[in-house]
Amino acid sequence: MDFESVFASRTSRMKASEIRELLKLLDRPGLISFAGGIPDASYFPAKQFGAAYQEALTAETAGTALQYSISEGYTPLRRWLAKEMAKLGVTCTEDNIMITSGSQQALDYLGKMLLSPGDTALINWPTYLGALGAFNAYEPRYDKLTVNGNRSAADISAAAQAEGGRVKFAYLSADFANPTGETVDRRGRENLIDMAEELECVIIEDAAYQSLRYDGEVVPPILALEIERKGSIEECRTIYCGSFSKTLSPGLRIGWICAAQPLVSQMVLLKQAGDLHVSTVNQMAISKVAETHFDTHVSTLHKVYSERRDAMLQALEEMMPKGVQWTKPEGGMFVWLTLPAHIDASELFKVALETENVAFVPGHAFFADGSGKNTMRLSFSCADAETIREGVRRLSKVVQEAL
Amino acid sequence: MDFESVFASRTSRMKASEIRELLKLLDRPGLISFAGGIPDASYFPAKQFGAAYQEALTAETAGTALQYSISEGYTPLRRWLAKEMAKLGVTCTEDNIMITSGSQQALDYLGKMLLSPGDTALINWPTYLGALGAFNAYEPRYDKLTVNGNRSAADISAAAQAEGGRVKFAYLSADFANPTGETVDRRGRENLIDMAEELECVIIEDAAYQSLRYDGEVVPPILALEIERKGSIEECRTIYCGSFSKTLSPGLRIGWICAAQPLVSQMVLLKQAGDLHVSTVNQMAISKVAETHFDTHVSTLHKVYSERRDAMLQALEEMMPKGVQWTKPEGGMFVWLTLPAHIDASELFKVALETENVAFVPGHAFFADGSGKNTMRLSFSCADAETIREGVRRLSKVVQEAL
Repeated sequence: MDFESVFASRTSRMKASEIRELLKLLDRPGLISFAGGIPDASYFPAKQFGAAYQEALTAETAGTALQYSISEGYTPLRRWLAKEMAKLGVTCTEDNIMITSGSQQALDYLGKMLLSPGDTALINWPTYLGALGAFNAYEPRYDKLTVNGNRSAADISAAAQAEGGRVKFAYLSADFANPTGETVDRRGRENLIDMAEELECVIIEDAAYQSLRYDGEVVPPILALEIERKGSIEECRTIYCGSFSKTLSPGLRIGWICAAQPLVSQMVLLKQAGDLHVSTVNQMAISKVAETHFDTHVSTLHKVYSERRDAMLQALEEMMPKGVQWTKPEGGMFVWLTLPAHIDASELFKVALETENVAFVPGHAFFADGSGKNTMRLSFSCADAETIREGVRRLSKVVQEAL
Repeated sequence: MDFESVFASRTSRMKASEIRELLKLLDRPGLISFAGGIPDASYFPAKQFGAAYQEALTAETAGTALQYSISEGYTPLRRWLAKEMAKLGVTCTEDNIMITSGSQQALDYLGKMLLSPGDTALINWPTYLGALGAFNAYEPRYDKLTVNGNRSAADISAAAQAEGGRVKFAYLSADFANPTGETVDRRGRENLIDMAEELECVIIEDAAYQSLRYDGEVVPPILALEIERKGSIEECRTIYCGSFSKTLSPGLRIGWICAAQPLVSQMVLLKQAGDLHVSTVNQMAISKVAETHFDTHVSTLHKVYSERRDAMLQALEEMMPKGVQWTKPEGGMFVWLTLPAHIDASELFKVALETENVAFVPGHAFFADGSGKNTMRLSFSCADAETIREGVRRLSKVVQEAL
């Protein structure tokens, strides 16, 4: 059977993730890896989850926990999330929230909901690789998102129309973004809302790392700023995508969207058609753990990850040769390095792995056009301070030799 | 914000499920419902699941259970499934299997993988409503699937081409189908493989109910018959979609596909882009329960559901007026009634609910063209024999009055 002959045209843009292929190389003794962007498994609240599953599976509630449930998501969990959102300035009810299979599914469904082939998606250069993966299936054109007012909405719109579509959304992670670790300031967020108004498009706010702020001034979510302007979430064009994957656990696959009700209603239709609903028992379990342990657990993560970030920034400062620049993230899991233009980070990756047993992710995969060859992403989430220091020492040596 | 203005054209075919709207009416005291097609929650293996989650969340494995995992699915689960598939005549390895978020997600992803707008999907008239929901998003043309050789492949293919696409797949549930309860015999399955060969399309075999055979002759899966012809799953065009939702639990959202490796590899790319992977802890838990309790649990379900089916068929035989016909399922959860042509089952639904407090699903929702107005689906899975008898008595009275 020649399956290629029956595949839809959209599959031509769905390629194997280069990063995933790279990660397969990383099962080596003594390797120090700054590559994977995942939480440190040793800090998962395993005991609390154990107790939560036991409680969900008692005789009284097991019939509910193991049964089909509504596509919107488990109501007590949506209520808890609505309260959490309110703390961030996003006044809403559970009817503004739908539970997704991680924020990755929110991105997939939003692409499916919004993008006809040839429509334009505004994204950062670089951007989250998983967003490119999700959106690619719906055959968009990408254009560069700027939040500094450098380009007029009219120009952006005209460029989209010239390609036969229109601007459907601006996608960004505004807090400690994957891969750069950078945060969009309040002014940038306000500019973005202005631009979206002019473009009559929606804003997809990927807030996967938002809870992981270690220092610096708190900036309200874009959705909160829009509600501040307009008085109600029902007037807003921003779709907030949240996730428990970077806080409580990615293994349950639970995220959420928060938006105006007509948008949520359409998402519920996509969820029904897509996979009916998120695992009932998982929603019940995470609801219990979130209600009782979210804040204390996130505090623990702040302490652990901020020490690791500090260790990485200090080691870079001490050891990295001149001519290399990097971001100073106020949260999240990533530092982004820019090497001198003549250094190809993919080539450097091979050398680093072979000669120094240290790994990172070459940056070009995060660019929709494959540019950014002299960039790399370092994650500090999964190594202790001492290991980070040794890893940066190894990496600095490799960079020095490539200069 | 006028969200309609940014929705992709594909959303115009994504409507609220009529059945789901109906089910909202069913929260009434004393109601006897044959409407929902769900397992009886009182038979879920709750204790076994409780123990399985505890085991997965011990210190030794919690870091794995709560962490990200591979898109293909949990390897021990895929190995167990490969052995189960072999028992059905489907010789394969874990590399032929990918875990999905219920079989619903398999249908969604297969639609996404295979259907460009205007392509033809061959489906039964009536067919599973969730399949229509999943496929509609990819804007196919539907044509009637027949397994009796009534229409030539050339005619079917020409009709597809006249609409600007080609036949990409034939979709069917071959065992105790939702909604009809009917099974395709061996000869029908062989005819279908012949036709797919001529059409050069794939076969999507929805096996959601396959484990629930109560009596009658076992018919091998279509995929098993194709392997019998060709010697290897790698030569086959059939994609088998399995599910734990009708056996162990729908609340974990776990199903699988089994197919030739190139097809599975493409599905893995869709899974990565769609939601990364199925909940790790759920895969570990269901793997443990399946390994130790699947066969005994399915035996229990056979006993429970076959008694209910017998009660329904006997009550229909005794009480339903002449002129009404129904299927005699050898398994599954459904009996399909065909009323005299002048009776509209949607009208009858309202009367049945108001005057007799009994519910069913009007059949026309299962037809891609909204025909079948004189049909209805009865589920026997969630009521005991006595209640079924009383429900059929009420329903017969309503039908009698409509004659």
